Amino acid sequence: MAATMEKTQILTPEALLTHWQGHRRLTRRVIEAFPEDKLFHYSIGGMRPFSVMIQEFLRMAEPIAHGVATGEWIDKSDLVLPESKPKVLEMWDAATAGLDREFRAIPAERFAAVDKAFGKWESDGLGMILYAIDNEVHHRGQAYVYLRSLGIEPPPFWER
Amino acid sequence: MAATMEKTQILTPEALLTHWQGHRRLTRRVIEAFPEDKLFHYSIGGMRPFSVMIQEFLRMAEPIAHGVATGEWIDKSDLVLPESKPKVLEMWDAATAGLDREFRAIPAERFAAVDKAFGKWESDGLGMILYAIDNEVHHRGQAYVYLRSLGIEPPPFWER
Repeated sequence: MAATMEKTQILTPEALLTHWQGHRRLTRRVIEAFPEDKLFHYSIGGMRPFSVMIQEFLRMAEPIAHGVATGEWIDKSDLVLPESKPKVLEMWDAATAGLDREFRAIPAERFAAVDKAFGKWESDGLGMILYAIDNEVHHRGQAYVYLRSLGIEPPPFWER
Repeated sequence: MAATMEKTQILTPEALLTHWQGHRRLTRRVIEAFPEDKLFHYSIGGMRPFSVMIQEFLRMAEPIAHGVATGEWIDKSDLVLPESKPKVLEMWDAATAGLDREFRAIPAERFAAVDKAFGKWESDGLGMILYAIDNEVHHRGQAYVYLRSLGIEPPPFWER
């Protein structure tokens, strides 16, 4: 069985991109669920408002896909979210298209190739992509608590 | 490129199990970070205490691996968490070993096979497993907010 475990392959890049974009669609619905002022200014326990987490997702998604594709790691710390919910959603949608484009340019062998992402994090390409997805799921879960504490029902987690 | 996207394979069952168990190790550290009474009784916005979420993780992990392996979906709603942190950790560790065992028994073709999990959710095997992992990351993220609101620093997200 161990031999099978090592040799079998169970995920294509296309399926991984679909999985990621499904999560991103849910994140978009969570952004929409926030009242505009709460999106930028509400938090619990000294944590970041959800807008700052969204800024982080945007700084990670396309740059990570681009870095995995090319080995070129572009620091996007100058990407700053405008304080307007419609403009955030516009930026989100632009990143959706950008991510599709960058992701589809990843050469097959780069998913397994180990690189130093942004000059700091050593990981194979797949590991970096899974980290970006997990990070989004993790912080979006926190946004669910923000919404619940505001008396707002978040979108269902299983809908993608 | 589209043809490459469909044909390339980027994940082995062994790597997926390692990824899942890495997340489960982090969840274990989050359980440890909770004061015992807060684990069972603290929540925000009418949500469930973290203990009830852990109970859900345990009802899902081994049964899903078993279901994907065998097509037999065992309802574990009789699995109830004891109100003792050391006993919860014991249960968690038993499930870690159980998950390794069940997961390694999954025949290669079952990851892509579509089944009706627990008689309710139609998905391929990989989809069910990813759902279980995402669900754990999502709710554990919520536990981070509980901890922060209690003035407790949660374990670093990137440590697995």
